[in-house]
Amino acid sequence: MKILLIGATGTIGQKVQERLQATHEVIPVGHSDGVYQVDIADKSSIQALFNQVGEVDAVISTTGLSAFAPLNDLTDEQFSQGWNNKLMGQINLLRVGQSFVREGGAILLTSGMLANEPIPGSIATSAANGALNSFVKAAALELGNTLRINAVSPIFVKETMEAMGMDSSTGMSAADTAKAYQAAVEGSMTGEVIDARDYV
Amino acid sequence: MKILLIGATGTIGQKVQERLQATHEVIPVGHSDGVYQVDIADKSSIQALFNQVGEVDAVISTTGLSAFAPLNDLTDEQFSQGWNNKLMGQINLLRVGQSFVREGGAILLTSGMLANEPIPGSIATSAANGALNSFVKAAALELGNTLRINAVSPIFVKETMEAMGMDSSTGMSAADTAKAYQAAVEGSMTGEVIDARDYV
Repeated sequence: MKILLIGATGTIGQKVQERLQATHEVIPVGHSDGVYQVDIADKSSIQALFNQVGEVDAVISTTGLSAFAPLNDLTDEQFSQGWNNKLMGQINLLRVGQSFVREGGAILLTSGMLANEPIPGSIATSAANGALNSFVKAAALELGNTLRINAVSPIFVKETMEAMGMDSSTGMSAADTAKAYQAAVEGSMTGEVIDARDYV
Repeated sequence: MKILLIGATGTIGQKVQERLQATHEVIPVGHSDGVYQVDIADKSSIQALFNQVGEVDAVISTTGLSAFAPLNDLTDEQFSQGWNNKLMGQINLLRVGQSFVREGGAILLTSGMLANEPIPGSIATSAANGALNSFVKAAALELGNTLRINAVSPIFVKETMEAMGMDSSTGMSAADTAKAYQAAVEGSMTGEVIDARDYV
């Protein structure tokens, strides 16, 4: 498969690329590095990327920004980032990308465990993830067999926790997290939110 | 209890008011009718409402606009309406309203079954509802015992279905739907998404 990987320079994205490029043609896309770049918060940037790349078999997003802060510290701008970047940015990967993915292909987004298992400070991110989970289910209902749409829901990534000076014992390595992306892109499911813990 | 009811002129809101005013002091708030009015999509309008009303024991929202249209007909503006009105508007009822609700009081929002049971055309509404469900859970975690935050998740309302010329046999009357709002505002739960079907 020819797979467009958006977020390829990120912690999870790097491991998804490593894992998939053994058996697939992976086209890595960064935010500000590499041959292909995109700002998913800007729909015209997504359109420009697909115009440049052309038809693919699958699109994987391992990107999406949303804020972390306690309820009373979260600004309007931080809430908006979640809607405009992680949520609408990934929704726009489907809206714009669907005409560039071959019939029966797949679009795979990234949600996260915080939708259902919040932590203090995760309000904006939990809400964006919850929206994505419902979006994937609703979009799949309309898309039928023309295009598979799913989301991987990772838990905290060990490498990220370590970089932040946190105890990483409850986390999952990026390499293990990448297994769920492979299962979802090579599988036949649609409208699913795939818990990364189920694929280790 | 002194209960601020936002959306009191709506189909569900009218029945919530009827049901609660037997035993509580209900202050009805409309969008463009009545003594108290608010546009929840405008944070300054929410602030002005609370400044006018002062302290209450509970806030109930039976309002929130989001669009219905198939994936490829939904405009950017229709998606934004869901984020700005139904989602952020109700989040702002907590952000602004929390300092006007007495310690141990309650804020009760409206989500909807489409978060988990989508229909064709519900993509934007499903996503907004899914975000609200995750928001309520995450916000409750931070609020602890200071303030209860919950959402009622109604199914389709019979009166609305009939007004739209639909078969209403699978719907629930607004009067029955109101029972869930009463249970949630008088109960002790927090961080819950309350399925209206459980309270008929």
